[in-house]
Amino acid sequence: MTSDSALIPIVITAVGPDNVRLVDPIIHYVTGQGANIAEVQMYDHDEEALFAMLLRIALPASQLTEIRHALAEIGKLKKLAVRVWSPEERRARPRLAICVTNRPETPLALLRGIRDGQIKAEPAVMIGNRPALRGLAEQFGVPWEMIGDSEGRADDERMIAVLDQYNVDYVILARYMRILPPASCWKYAGGRIINLHHGLLPSFPGPRPYHDAYASRMLTYGATCHFIVPELDAGNQIINQTTFTIPPGMKLDEIIRIGQEDNEPRCLAEGVRRVVDGEVQLHFHRVVARR
Amino acid sequence: MTSDSALIPIVITAVGPDNVRLVDPIIHYVTGQGANIAEVQMYDHDEEALFAMLLRIALPASQLTEIRHALAEIGKLKKLAVRVWSPEERRARPRLAICVTNRPETPLALLRGIRDGQIKAEPAVMIGNRPALRGLAEQFGVPWEMIGDSEGRADDERMIAVLDQYNVDYVILARYMRILPPASCWKYAGGRIINLHHGLLPSFPGPRPYHDAYASRMLTYGATCHFIVPELDAGNQIINQTTFTIPPGMKLDEIIRIGQEDNEPRCLAEGVRRVVDGEVQLHFHRVVARR
Amino acid sequence: MTSDSALIPIVITAVGPDNVRLVDPIIHYVTGQGANIAEVQMYDHDEEALFAMLLRIALPASQLTEIRHALAEIGKLKKLAVRVWSPEERRARPRLAICVTNRPETPLALLRGIRDGQIKAEPAVMIGNRPALRGLAEQFGVPWEMIGDSEGRADDERMIAVLDQYNVDYVILARYMRILPPASCWKYAGGRIINLHHGLLPSFPGPRPYHDAYASRMLTYGATCHFIVPELDAGNQIINQTTFTIPPGMKLDEIIRIGQEDNEPRCLAEGVRRVVDGEVQLHFHRVVARR
Amino acid sequence: MTSDSALIPIVITAVGPDNVRLVDPIIHYVTGQGANIAEVQMYDHDEEALFAMLLRIALPASQLTEIRHALAEIGKLKKLAVRVWSPEERRARPRLAICVTNRPETPLALLRGIRDGQIKAEPAVMIGNRPALRGLAEQFGVPWEMIGDSEGRADDERMIAVLDQYNVDYVILARYMRILPPASCWKYAGGRIINLHHGLLPSFPGPRPYHDAYASRMLTYGATCHFIVPELDAGNQIINQTTFTIPPGMKLDEIIRIGQEDNEPRCLAEGVRRVVDGEVQLHFHRVVARR
Repeated sequence: MTSDSALIPIVITAVGPDNVRLVDPIIHYVTGQGANIAEVQMYDHDEEALFAMLLRIALPASQLTEIRHALAEIGKLKKLAVRVWSPEERRARPRLAICVTNRPETPLALLRGIRDGQIKAEPAVMIGNRPALRGLAEQFGVPWEMIGDSEGRADDERMIAVLDQYNVDYVILARYMRILPPASCWKYAGGRIINLHHGLLPSFPGPRPYHDAYASRMLTYGATCHFIVPELDAGNQIINQTTFTIPPGMKLDEIIRIGQEDNEPRCLAEGVRRVVDGEVQLHFHRVVARR
Repeated sequence: MTSDSALIPIVITAVGPDNVRLVDPIIHYVTGQGANIAEVQMYDHDEEALFAMLLRIALPASQLTEIRHALAEIGKLKKLAVRVWSPEERRARPRLAICVTNRPETPLALLRGIRDGQIKAEPAVMIGNRPALRGLAEQFGVPWEMIGDSEGRADDERMIAVLDQYNVDYVILARYMRILPPASCWKYAGGRIINLHHGLLPSFPGPRPYHDAYASRMLTYGATCHFIVPELDAGNQIINQTTFTIPPGMKLDEIIRIGQEDNEPRCLAEGVRRVVDGEVQLHFHRVVARR
Repeated sequence: MTSDSALIPIVITAVGPDNVRLVDPIIHYVTGQGANIAEVQMYDHDEEALFAMLLRIALPASQLTEIRHALAEIGKLKKLAVRVWSPEERRARPRLAICVTNRPETPLALLRGIRDGQIKAEPAVMIGNRPALRGLAEQFGVPWEMIGDSEGRADDERMIAVLDQYNVDYVILARYMRILPPASCWKYAGGRIINLHHGLLPSFPGPRPYHDAYASRMLTYGATCHFIVPELDAGNQIINQTTFTIPPGMKLDEIIRIGQEDNEPRCLAEGVRRVVDGEVQLHFHRVVARR
Repeated sequence: MTSDSALIPIVITAVGPDNVRLVDPIIHYVTGQGANIAEVQMYDHDEEALFAMLLRIALPASQLTEIRHALAEIGKLKKLAVRVWSPEERRARPRLAICVTNRPETPLALLRGIRDGQIKAEPAVMIGNRPALRGLAEQFGVPWEMIGDSEGRADDERMIAVLDQYNVDYVILARYMRILPPASCWKYAGGRIINLHHGLLPSFPGPRPYHDAYASRMLTYGATCHFIVPELDAGNQIINQTTFTIPPGMKLDEIIRIGQEDNEPRCLAEGVRRVVDGEVQLHFHRVVARR
């Protein structure tokens, strides 16, 4: 619990079609409220007419509702997608969206970690672009939302609508095999999207890291849990990495089995725990340990 | 010439030891003046306690002197290094600093281009970390400033002081063989530092691009003129590229000779001309052609 | 014309399921004939039971027929795919296979270059994995062989059979959009397969080099003509590179148009001419200019 | 112990100034002895007039002395550097050269592993390009040979002479901070040179892997023990990899300490054990597990 007058960090994201309408009304408003600006990032996707801004400020907790209301008004007026979020609001038990495709191991590890109290979070919703894991959601009593068509193509706008609707704090990509478009990354920017890559970054960044590493006859395999930061490749955004080493001669099937059943779930569950427990946070483009 | 009431672009850079003192007073001031914020970038170098900001705004030309004065005051008060610059101020004849080490070909191309009217700029100062090209400066009647010690190590703070003293608009690194530290890049951020790399980026980015390309038996060699953008590798910041192709079997010496005597000078002179004539500009992290 | 007793270079390639049966009988035979071994390379594709060897020797021209006959016998006996080839045999007018998919510009440049006498070669056959360019083959009176199924998948064994049937000296991949499997590369190893990559290697090696380079806002675009060497990425195998530079702001469509219609044809036609005229050759893994 | 008539693998390396004199006499001789050729590799360093060959054959153990003698004669006659080696000759207790610079941890791990019987090998000689670890050699009663000048530059020819003189089977680079020239790599080719890289290849291949990984805020660090194969970067040649993962926020000093004192010694000692115990071997360019 935070006392009303203590300063809390607030993350504001805005996405819109040009930069002037995007930045000015929001900056005017928050500086008018006496906010200190701790971080500001802007980006344009010129040819697509997509401008985005991230603003990190500090304000008394008591002002959160008011600022959220005011910025929603500004958003409506200026046709901006504005979001106001504070990691403190549901610090004790943040709400997670677990996004999945076909593989059950990593979402299962999260759901068990939550059930058993190691991950102190609320499994707000499971989102799939494939129907395969609906049963897993039902088994754990978590709402299931399907956002994929018959070929697994994701409706990215619907995903954002679902995240908003369920009041999600953190979006966990648990072997979710689709790439989020820049607009989605910006809307939930500020250290709210957490991905599991099933390889040991920065090596083997592609979609088939086990196969690529095996083709190079690697003896170490691993997984990487990282924040997704718009416009940047993962690198400085690593939250957790776990590895396993194999003896020469082990077959690819066996390596993948160890990776998927043992290493990846362990990597993601511990990574999400670090975020939920507030041990790490995104500071500008880097993960830092919280004091 | 710009009429006093027309909006002109203004670039404000600030470098300081923490982010709150850095951003807030400047943003407060410029938004208080009614400025539209066209771009804002921030960066931290955490372990070094170096925060930096770039702000691009539009204001009537008549306010430039006032805003420069006011921000100088804020800088003094908050112990920030603040700079206010507009590409419009000396649009007709911007002032160049030509930074050099040992090779005379590219600075010579600039000085001749200026003399002959192809590059409509003022050669405000030549800056060297080695004494080799002092004679060239004298020959063209350009002030010479030495910033290197006996082993060629550059005094980066002195370089900035020289740039400020000579009221420099653009800093041209004409085979200047030292790397500018982040603080220098930020202080002259916003498309004011122009580098010549003697290889064809993105290939062969190292310090010996001719040798590296030759070791791979390349048949095309080239040079790249680009803006230096803090924190980013050159890529989207390319202003000009020129190439030459060779027949199989040409020796490295001959390749280097063609590159240094013919290709590099041509590449840099045309790149600087494009900037000086306002044909290109840096828009966020990318070079765009001006309409 | 080569006198019968002069030594000529002979390239022997062999592909088979294990290494002992592959190497020994061939080496025994050729050393028994008094051949000097100028180069020998071996490779295994362990898990696929594919072993391959390249042997470069020198023997009197008069022995070529005999050695070809003897090694064919050994191949039959040991179940090896053995090929014996000399660049001298049809030096005056080597036979080309022009392999294509959809784009007509580069094969057209070759056919015109041959017709007009700039490329002193015989267009032995055009091979397509798509039917699009059959008309071009007919227009120039070149035999057309279709090796693709209805989705453009190539029958790689049939391609080799066609190359053998038409007595092909050099295989030209003229925007042929399929990757040759290692077995095919080995069977025509020794500097006989020439590819056009529509980007400036080593940058942008992927299948969409124009798009990739454009996404990085490059101002230089190019094409690379290179030998395909089994197991190696192109690099030291470059035969020709040509480039064009563009002003900032040029649209992708226009860039692709210049590249495809002007730059690529020029690059490939000159590259093939260099090979046909014997100006370059593959020496171990590198292209060298012939004295 | 191998019975005299059983076939044993024999590795022949030869280095000389041209390719004809290099290959032919050796191939003629060994095929004349009835040897099966299991592998043959050749390479040229054109501009340096350095040709090299590796030949792997199988012959009865009883012929080893004879073939060594005969090839030494050929070498003398043709001015070639020829070496004949079999991993079987001292299979029970191969002789190691431990090459070092300044860091004591990895050589110490080897010397202890040998003393305690985990590594069944003979520490034939310690070779240093710096004098720092002479005391360590004396402590374990191992002959010490200094090959560096006052600035640590290594006399590579002297290193080879020392290896020959001490009848070394395997050369272990235990944080030896010099690069072996191609001629040295070829002379001891065939899986006899084992390096410890203090990073997790293929990431961070440079000379300062801890610093590079730290700059990217990695949470996994590691070491790689691999065969050095002439002309190739390590990749498929990995013998052992070990890693450790750290919590966010750990300082670089502490990471390096863990890496150097714990992880590197463990990685190298186990890697050398695998080679000495014959669990792995180099097959063409790849490490394979021995059946």
